[in-house]
Amino acid sequence: MKLKINGERLWSSLMEMAKIGATEKGGCNRQALTDLDKQGRDLFVKWCQEIGCERRIDQMGNIFMRRKGTDNTLPPVLMGSHLDTQPTGGKFDGVYGVLAGLEVLRTLDETDTHTLHPIEVAVWTNEEGARFSPAMIGSGVWSGDFSLEYGLQRTDKGGATIAQELERIGYAGECPCEPFPIKAAFELHIEQGPILESLNKPIGVVKGVQGMRWYDLVIHGQPVHAGPTPMEQRHDPVKAAARIIQQLYSLADEFAPQARATFGDINVSPGSRNTVPEKLTLTVDLRHPNQEMLKQMDEKFRQISSSVCAECSVQFEILDEWDSPAVEFNKHCIDAVRASVAATGLAYEEMFSGAGHDSVYVSRVAPTSMIFIPCENGISHNEAENVTPEDITSGCQVLLGAVLTLATQ
Amino acid sequence: MKLKINGERLWSSLMEMAKIGATEKGGCNRQALTDLDKQGRDLFVKWCQEIGCERRIDQMGNIFMRRKGTDNTLPPVLMGSHLDTQPTGGKFDGVYGVLAGLEVLRTLDETDTHTLHPIEVAVWTNEEGARFSPAMIGSGVWSGDFSLEYGLQRTDKGGATIAQELERIGYAGECPCEPFPIKAAFELHIEQGPILESLNKPIGVVKGVQGMRWYDLVIHGQPVHAGPTPMEQRHDPVKAAARIIQQLYSLADEFAPQARATFGDINVSPGSRNTVPEKLTLTVDLRHPNQEMLKQMDEKFRQISSSVCAECSVQFEILDEWDSPAVEFNKHCIDAVRASVAATGLAYEEMFSGAGHDSVYVSRVAPTSMIFIPCENGISHNEAENVTPEDITSGCQVLLGAVLTLATQ
Repeated sequence: MKLKINGERLWSSLMEMAKIGATEKGGCNRQALTDLDKQGRDLFVKWCQEIGCERRIDQMGNIFMRRKGTDNTLPPVLMGSHLDTQPTGGKFDGVYGVLAGLEVLRTLDETDTHTLHPIEVAVWTNEEGARFSPAMIGSGVWSGDFSLEYGLQRTDKGGATIAQELERIGYAGECPCEPFPIKAAFELHIEQGPILESLNKPIGVVKGVQGMRWYDLVIHGQPVHAGPTPMEQRHDPVKAAARIIQQLYSLADEFAPQARATFGDINVSPGSRNTVPEKLTLTVDLRHPNQEMLKQMDEKFRQISSSVCAECSVQFEILDEWDSPAVEFNKHCIDAVRASVAATGLAYEEMFSGAGHDSVYVSRVAPTSMIFIPCENGISHNEAENVTPEDITSGCQVLLGAVLTLATQ
Repeated sequence: MKLKINGERLWSSLMEMAKIGATEKGGCNRQALTDLDKQGRDLFVKWCQEIGCERRIDQMGNIFMRRKGTDNTLPPVLMGSHLDTQPTGGKFDGVYGVLAGLEVLRTLDETDTHTLHPIEVAVWTNEEGARFSPAMIGSGVWSGDFSLEYGLQRTDKGGATIAQELERIGYAGECPCEPFPIKAAFELHIEQGPILESLNKPIGVVKGVQGMRWYDLVIHGQPVHAGPTPMEQRHDPVKAAARIIQQLYSLADEFAPQARATFGDINVSPGSRNTVPEKLTLTVDLRHPNQEMLKQMDEKFRQISSSVCAECSVQFEILDEWDSPAVEFNKHCIDAVRASVAATGLAYEEMFSGAGHDSVYVSRVAPTSMIFIPCENGISHNEAENVTPEDITSGCQVLLGAVLTLATQ
């Protein structure tokens, strides 16, 4: 008998979760470890407990909901993603991977299907990096890429730490935040890019993840009055920033089509309209799926900053915020996904992810791969993020197949 | 008998006032209508009352301290400037013009000198424009360039209005905020530029003020995920802003050496490092002493914004925040200053101001001119702002001469 997931039930779970932090424009603002994140976590835990799953929470607030196997000494097959969103985020990014995991468990439960291995659904803390930097800190501490102390002491703009916020919302768990034996891990996610849609294919078999680097570029100038100070006597950080930004867009062109350069935040102080700024801080996000190309982009970014700041008579520093090398996923997991999608008869594309995911860290310590579905116009990190119920159903069906293959052998 | 002002007393008043809002780096942060501004105003009023001056406060919180003349039906000679500072401002910008006015009155008082006309010292509200936009709103409402309603409803970043803050600090006066007959008005100020220092001249006879325009350029893009979205499919406001800024620096070069282009504040939303921004707001400050050149700069700014935003597939709007045409000061006032400086034997330069001052608005309704003294390295709007005690004394002596000439005839 071939098991079929219940697409309508999955869709309605997604819509129920989307009410928590719903924005006027139809998106979600449910940032990590806020009161709303707590509500979302509580709802997910309740749903899992209704079908008999057991809850574990670790020291970083990562949640693992476990459905027992027939041999519970064997390592579990893991599904999952994250429930936190961007400030103006969508309803599917991350949430889909978590609730599709739940739907797989519900399908097994209602058909009284038993697996050799236990199966777990994970919710990783602060994947987005919107409230606390860096992104994916929950999975990153778990995998051992960051120390627990580092993770717990990350602060938001208001100075609150992850440790304080976990305690406050009741998700400071006692399980050690560290890897445990895992048979295989799968993360189902919306593509967050336009490729599957443009190819009109419902499934992406994801073989790896783009490398990416995050920096803060801080430029120091001299604050002088906007009127009397001749242009050529100024030490103006805005002048340097504008030139550097332009040259980094050219750098992305040079490494096209796969390079990305993004400047998501700019802060200027003192921020008075008739004073040349004393300081400008620019966030820089550089990405490339080829590690060697990314290394070259990093070097050129440093050269550009140095030469432009010299031209403009300003000082600068580059703060390295995050360095996530390009990742190749596990062959057996990829094979299981490929076999599952083949069994459904759906069209698929083999591809690399352009976004970071918890699977980057999970793949360091466990066999891992990902599955993508298309999203409308490739738009994500946006309230307008959208998918079709058909694709939602297809992706979950592929996930179920891959999980069953590895959980029963 | 020639009256001599007391330079030491003036210097010590300046240092006493500078303690209110003193910053670690030796500057001042005494922004308009804060508790610190109230303390500064109270101290000034107390000093004036100690020598018998009468206080008037108008509906915008502008303060007028009056020393009687021998015929009080005659219009007063006015001195003064402002007591508010930039967030990281200096000890002399504005404050010098107010306390030099006090020193002139103290000199007249201790020598028992009587003038035909009354003499007043004015403190204008929110000259800096750092807390409430636009700058010089106190003198601008007084001159009739803005309505009282407009002035009172200006808000700071936290949403507090000028009306609320005047009430809170006890400076919501009852006198109508409107012009009254004035014989002549003088504003003594630090140059806030490098010209006098480079010429090694202690006095600037100021014949007018640069025209200036303030805008908010708002650029609307589409917030998408930094990783998967190909560069050529983005609608990125940062890309447009960087190009516009560069072209506006080139525009300033085109109208060199007297043009100025300054970008004092940049705000990006949602401000997440891995999301292409949805919106970027850039403050633009354009200046030129020739009104026709400034008009051309304004037109080219609009053309540049339009063509760059079209190239980058983003939308934009330009909000006109302020338009202050170039100003020519009153011939009789300039002559009085010229005669006074000639009597001292000091070297002087005839010049235009590159910064906006309350005298721009005062000159619309009363005969007005200004006097400048050098400031170290031309630096102002900066905690490092500095002047010499000798120049402070010289400027005040020239002010006394000009005021006496017009107050006695």
